[in-house]
Formats: sequence, C-alpha cells, structure tokens
Amino acid sequence: MAPLSGPRPALKTDGYRERIDAALDRATQFDADCPARLREAIRYALLAPGKRLRPRLVLMACEACGGDVDAAMPAACAVEMVHAYSLVHDDLPAMDDDDLRRGRPTCHKAFDEATAILVGDALLARAFDVMAAELQPASVAAACCAILARAAGATALVGGQAADLEMAAAKPDDGSAGVSELKAIHRRKTGAIIRASLELGGCVAGSSAEELAALVGYGERVGLAFQIVDDLLDVAGDPAAVGKRLSKDADHNKLTFPRLLGREVSRQEAHKLTDEACAMIEIFGSRAAPLIELAKFVCTRHA
Amino acid sequence: MAPLSGPRPALKTDGYRERIDAALDRATQFDADCPARLREAIRYALLAPGKRLRPRLVLMACEACGGDVDAAMPAACAVEMVHAYSLVHDDLPAMDDDDLRRGRPTCHKAFDEATAILVGDALLARAFDVMAAELQPASVAAACCAILARAAGATALVGGQAADLEMAAAKPDDGSAGVSELKAIHRRKTGAIIRASLELGGCVAGSSAEELAALVGYGERVGLAFQIVDDLLDVAGDPAAVGKRLSKDADHNKLTFPRLLGREVSRQEAHKLTDEACAMIEIFGSRAAPLIELAKFVCTRHA
Repeated sequence: MAPLSGPRPALKTDGYRERIDAALDRATQFDADCPARLREAIRYALLAPGKRLRPRLVLMACEACGGDVDAAMPAACAVEMVHAYSLVHDDLPAMDDDDLRRGRPTCHKAFDEATAILVGDALLARAFDVMAAELQPASVAAACCAILARAAGATALVGGQAADLEMAAAKPDDGSAGVSELKAIHRRKTGAIIRASLELGGCVAGSSAEELAALVGYGERVGLAFQIVDDLLDVAGDPAAVGKRLSKDADHNKLTFPRLLGREVSRQEAHKLTDEACAMIEIFGSRAAPLIELAKFVCTRHA
Repeated sequence: MAPLSGPRPALKTDGYRERIDAALDRATQFDADCPARLREAIRYALLAPGKRLRPRLVLMACEACGGDVDAAMPAACAVEMVHAYSLVHDDLPAMDDDDLRRGRPTCHKAFDEATAILVGDALLARAFDVMAAELQPASVAAACCAILARAAGATALVGGQAADLEMAAAKPDDGSAGVSELKAIHRRKTGAIIRASLELGGCVAGSSAEELAALVGYGERVGLAFQIVDDLLDVAGDPAAVGKRLSKDADHNKLTFPRLLGREVSRQEAHKLTDEACAMIEIFGSRAAPLIELAKFVCTRHA
C-alpha cells in the first residue's frame, strides 16, 4: 500500500457514487411544507462533494452477501443523512466551531446557526423516514431503523462526540488518557456508523450470522483505520485536498493517534487494521473485491 | 367549559402518567458507553415535570380503538422524546433563546450549549430506537417509525420551526401575514406531532380507516386549540403556573392568534375546535371518554 506521501489514490469509478447521489437528490426534494431556505440548506449539507464512504459500504456489503443493491439504497441514503447531520452539528460554534467542510463554508456559515441546527434535525428525521417507508419487507425496515438509531444515539455517535468534547476540555496533556480511551471514543464517534453501514447492507441482503460477523469485523477495523488516517491528515495533509481546516486537533488540544503513538506507528497501525479487515471478508470470495478496494483507499487516502 | 380565568383545571389521576414516566425512565438508563453527564442531561430534559400530553394521546387513541395500552408504550415514549428534543433545540440561544422551561433552567442553561445540542440529537435517535426495537409486529414498528419520522421532519416539526423563525425575522407587523399563514405554521410546528400521536396509537391498535380518520380529525383540531391556548397563556398566563418565560412571543415579535384575532375571538376559536374534536370521536362511544377529557383540559388549562 502507498504511504501517505505517495501518489494520491482514488476510488475507481464504480458506478455506486452516481447512483447514491441521484438517490440522495430524490430523497430531499420535499414538498411545499418545507420552507425553501431550509430545503436549500439541507441539500447544501447533504449533496456537498464527499466520498460517500458510508453509503458505498452499505451497498458493497449488500452485494458481498448476494443482495440487490437497489433494495439497499434507502439504507445507503439514510446512513449518509446521519453522517451529514453529524458533521453539520459538530461544526457548530458551540461544538467544534469549524468554518470549512468539504472545501466549502460550513452550513452555519453559509446559512446561519439556527438553520444549521434545524438542518441536522431534519436530516436525522429524514434518515428514518426513508428507511421506514421504503425498505422492504417491514421486518428489514424495522431492523435497519433499530441498527441505525442505536449507532446514532447516546451510546454511540452522540456519546462519542460528548466524550470527545469532555476529553478536550480535560486537557489530555496531563497523560491520564491513553490509546484505549482514544479507541473507545472513536469506536463510538466514527466506528459505530461505519460498522452500522456494513450491518445495514447485510440486513437488507438477509445475511447469515457468519456473513454478518465478517462484515462487522471488517467494519470495526476499517472504522478505526479511517480515524487514524484522519488524524494523520490533520497533522500532515494538504488543506486543499482534505477540504477542511487542518491542525484543528492540536488547536482544540484533542487527543489523537499521532500525538499518542507518533506518526510512523500510527501509519503502521492503520495498515495492520486494513490487512486484518481484508482478511476477515475472504469468505465472500470475489464479491468482496469492492470492500477490499475501499479499505485500501481508506488507508492510503489523502483526503 | 371554564374560561381561562376560572378555577385551574387538572387532569384527574388516570394512571397513564405514572406508567409513562416509568417507561421513560427505563428507556433512558443507557449503558456505560453513554457519558455520565450526557445521560444526566438527557434525563433532565426528558423526565422534567410535564403534562405528557402527547404520550397520553398515543395511549388513549390505542385504547379508543380497543388496543392494548402496554403495546403502545414504546410509541408513547418515542413521541415524548421527540417533543422533549424539540423543546431543547428550540430553547437554544440561536433559536428562541429561552432560559426557563417547565419551571426550571433550560437544558443549555443547566448544562451547556454543546450538551443541549447533543441531548436533542440523542433523544431523536432514541425515539426511533425504542420504536424499531420494541414495537411488535415489525409491520407496526416500521409504520410507526414512518409516521413519527415524517411528523418530526422538514415538512412538519422542523419545517414549522424554520417558518416560525423566518416569519419572526420578517416582522409580522407589516400586515402581510394572516391567520392562514399562522395556522400553516402551527399545523407543522405543534399540530403534526399531536396528530402523529393519535395515528401512532391507532396504528398499534390496528385501527380501521374510519377510526384513523376520526383520530386524525380529532388530533388536527386539538393540536390547533392547544396552540391557541398556548398563545393566550403567553399574554395572560401566570408564569409560575406556566413554568416558562411569558410575553416572549411579543418580545420576539412573533405572530400569535391573540395578536391577529384578539383574545376573545381566539378563546372562542379554541372552544369551537375542541367541540368539533370531541364530536369527531363519537364513533368510539364510551372508549372516547379519556380523549374527550383531554381535549377539554387542553382548552381550559392554565399551564
């Protein structure tokens, strides 16, 4: 795998991206009961350029288990909506206070703070609306709502963000927090939604227990590798490519992997996790190829 | 029905309240992955003294259709979680900027702004978690998730709040906005969740199309009456009884029913809507008694 300083990797055009973006566009048309400015802000936040990593994982997991990609599209849209909502709220002045996201002004900068709060709320509600109304059969719809709600909630995504803010406020430099605490935060803050993406795809495809365990194992490792690389990009990335303000972890006095382990060990850890993730999905044979390509992209990406 | 200046009405002890509060308490225990302070703030916002109007409506609608109240409890909890989340976010400095709610400091005052944003997010996610994981069968769980997600989203609750903020910013005194615009805002901001509460109860009970139409008609009228009385309390209520800052609509230059129609006509409108609501549920016979009592309470309440 290429080191972070090598040529910039790219996901090859796999056809997922265009289908995901078209589905997200359709899912956020709304009728006249949605005020025009709110609609514009929701679409600004959701349809911004992005890797669509999480919805890709939903579709790829579904395919790996022999499922129909189109059937999984509502779950793919939902997971991207939850991701976009979490970015909009995390960027708020009371939270991480960021001005730049995906290379553009953050939602509260482009619109205003009240609108950004409402955009996040609307995206979270729409995620469950799309899944509950469109996934078939009802047992899959209910199971997917349960998976995503748990991953978005107080013991996962929201809890991880709260713990992250608490740890930043507690000044990590006193040495009390270590790698295990940092992993525990990221397991919730980044990992839970990535893991849920895999579970959603498997759920739609009617995966076996063995297949689900493989997807979850892959998801846990790729989620952590993703966060380590994110931390590395924050200290060593190109702001134009990353599309957001860099060195902000240091500004916020946040605990990061490079800070605790050094850059080289962090890089080795990301590669090790990626290798493990790819090994876990060997049971899917050639149908695992897109998931393997994605894991390698996550580990070597520049943005 | 008693006028607003008469003796303070109260809902008789109906047994619903204690069961709802016990269920809300159980639903927000969380495991160790939820940071302690976040958990405390979630429970502060959700378990605050309140009328539990919306979960009562869920349970009463279920009973009116001959359903099992216990089966509807996850939906009752979910609707109260969505209501509590909307209050926490609406009270934020960037939104209505309120210090007092239900007689106590608002969530961002008692904790901090970042925590209040996360509390709202966590409550919204938990609402769908509870329903998707606990309602049976899966077809009911999926249908209830769809009903509540739609009512909470950009074309209903969130859209109404956005429209309300826009209208306040546009200075209603120029006379361009009228009763129909005001009703359209409240149909989304307050009405949609009240209407959804009735639909959820009916859905769990497996209501017929005729029963559902009666519940929806009742819900639309009670929802609007509730908002008119809320506006009246803001100009003429007792702050200690209402438990929140009063005259805030005038401070925020907000359009209200008393402002557009005068107090007396507003009061008459609330009574007319309540009478209509009660007439609509006559098809349920004696099983409609709790819903009729609740409608009368809404119309004559002081807080």
